[in-house]
Amino acid sequence: MRGAAQRVTAFAPASVGNVAIGFDILGFSVDALGDRVTVSRRAERGVEISAVQGLAVELARNPSDNTAGKALLALSEALAPPCGFCVQIDKGIPLGSGLGGSAASAVAAVVAADALLDSRCARADLLRFAAAGEAVASGDRHMDNIAPSLYGGLVLTVGVDEPRVKQIPVPGGVRAVIVHPHMYLATSKARAMLRPSVQLSDFVWQTANLAGFISACYTNDLEMLRASFEDVVIEPQRQALIPGFTAVRRAAMQSGALGCSISGAGPTLFAWAEAAAAPQVQAAMQAEFARHGLTTDAWCVELIARGARVLE
Amino acid sequence: MRGAAQRVTAFAPASVGNVAIGFDILGFSVDALGDRVTVSRRAERGVEISAVQGLAVELARNPSDNTAGKALLALSEALAPPCGFCVQIDKGIPLGSGLGGSAASAVAAVVAADALLDSRCARADLLRFAAAGEAVASGDRHMDNIAPSLYGGLVLTVGVDEPRVKQIPVPGGVRAVIVHPHMYLATSKARAMLRPSVQLSDFVWQTANLAGFISACYTNDLEMLRASFEDVVIEPQRQALIPGFTAVRRAAMQSGALGCSISGAGPTLFAWAEAAAAPQVQAAMQAEFARHGLTTDAWCVELIARGARVLE
Repeated sequence: MRGAAQRVTAFAPASVGNVAIGFDILGFSVDALGDRVTVSRRAERGVEISAVQGLAVELARNPSDNTAGKALLALSEALAPPCGFCVQIDKGIPLGSGLGGSAASAVAAVVAADALLDSRCARADLLRFAAAGEAVASGDRHMDNIAPSLYGGLVLTVGVDEPRVKQIPVPGGVRAVIVHPHMYLATSKARAMLRPSVQLSDFVWQTANLAGFISACYTNDLEMLRASFEDVVIEPQRQALIPGFTAVRRAAMQSGALGCSISGAGPTLFAWAEAAAAPQVQAAMQAEFARHGLTTDAWCVELIARGARVLE
Repeated sequence: MRGAAQRVTAFAPASVGNVAIGFDILGFSVDALGDRVTVSRRAERGVEISAVQGLAVELARNPSDNTAGKALLALSEALAPPCGFCVQIDKGIPLGSGLGGSAASAVAAVVAADALLDSRCARADLLRFAAAGEAVASGDRHMDNIAPSLYGGLVLTVGVDEPRVKQIPVPGGVRAVIVHPHMYLATSKARAMLRPSVQLSDFVWQTANLAGFISACYTNDLEMLRASFEDVVIEPQRQALIPGFTAVRRAAMQSGALGCSISGAGPTLFAWAEAAAAPQVQAAMQAEFARHGLTTDAWCVELIARGARVLE
């Protein structure tokens, strides 16, 4: 009987935001790693972050400054629950990796709290609560990590105040390679460096690539996917933050990748490749990072539409 | 036996470029009107424009300055045919209407010449020849009228040097309303007024709308179609060129349109609507133009994937 549960743990997967051509609007979940958040009832209203463990322990404990805490405050404001929340965060996603860790904590928190209260919120509502949490980390409301972490798979979000979500099919047999170099990059720094405008010609080029990419996903068109899988707007501005970026990307493409770009704000890079090519893509990317003095973790994963969920 | 044909006539439909969210990359054909081009063999190499009739007669007769002529020169350069071409153009699309007339003439010309020579070119090659013609009119190579006129239906083009084309399905039951106010607008003027860059926030908004629109088309999602059918980049800059634009658009939306924007560079406006609402959308748009002193022609058409073809 969930209604009487005293504590619930939820898992929310990591995610790759932007996906080269969908800056701030597109992302995909990476189920191989994620954050776990346990939410317990407490008599006093409000939110308390009682523990942070795992890959990062230095998160803000003030709930208004913590993505999970802020998301739960947003949920509390909307639902006015009869209790407060005590929150334990188990980070499985490295901080500052560009893998959507702050989003995952926020998503796992609202999914756990929703189950704890048995409030059965629509996912669109959970999305909004989690987005309020994510804003703590990025200073801006964007959904390209929140939405895939919550819904799972390749996810498009249209709109901010009334976000509409589409789960987009990924051609069968495609794998995502994720390579995380061991360095820290602040999302805020990667955002602040972006020019405030886009050249009209680049705008046309990027929109063509975006439309081609979406269209290719719906039609299993790997040739179009490869032709359109190129970020001509954001990547050129951010790549200097990542040592060896150009060489790593080139190595991935020469090994048969369909596309390779920066995961969110970086420094993690990702590539898509057909299953047969994916291991060599991963090896080539790791080798090239090593040549630039960076050790890495890497994953090669299926693109499955499985989002955040309660752990029984 | 086509190989021995002495003359071939082809029809190429009008088209609506941009479709609100796909500036320079997206367009749909309007089969209810179009240009007819008759191409005949002549012994002498080269291209001669022998007649122009129909809705416009004042086209350039120098083949290098005429979209059909220039397209045939491009075709001739690639195919080195054993003859030259004599060309008659029958304009069914008003000049300066924003309905892709220059593109249609170029497309009909290459389709007719291809049949005349029995050269059976790939459509991708015909697209390139026609694009070379269209560049005469717009001063730029873009495919958002050429590709739908050639392929038919709602058509995305990715890339310019090696254009890749996707015909995108349109949700069943959707109609296009086309309202052409009786005024002339030079494409070059409408292009020259565009700012050379796009604000990053508008870039994100527009890309979200584009991705939502494409995704909605593939999934028959009329709610998403309506939510994403908004041009926040180009339309605000061009609307001042069209008397009554804001009122006409508002009238269309209040009559149940899914979206309403400028056809190409204007002044024609188009709307999409479900079949039941389309007649009142058309009436409302025409009435509002009339209030602004403009008489109009209008069409309400199905969005069918039927492109240019030889007329037997």
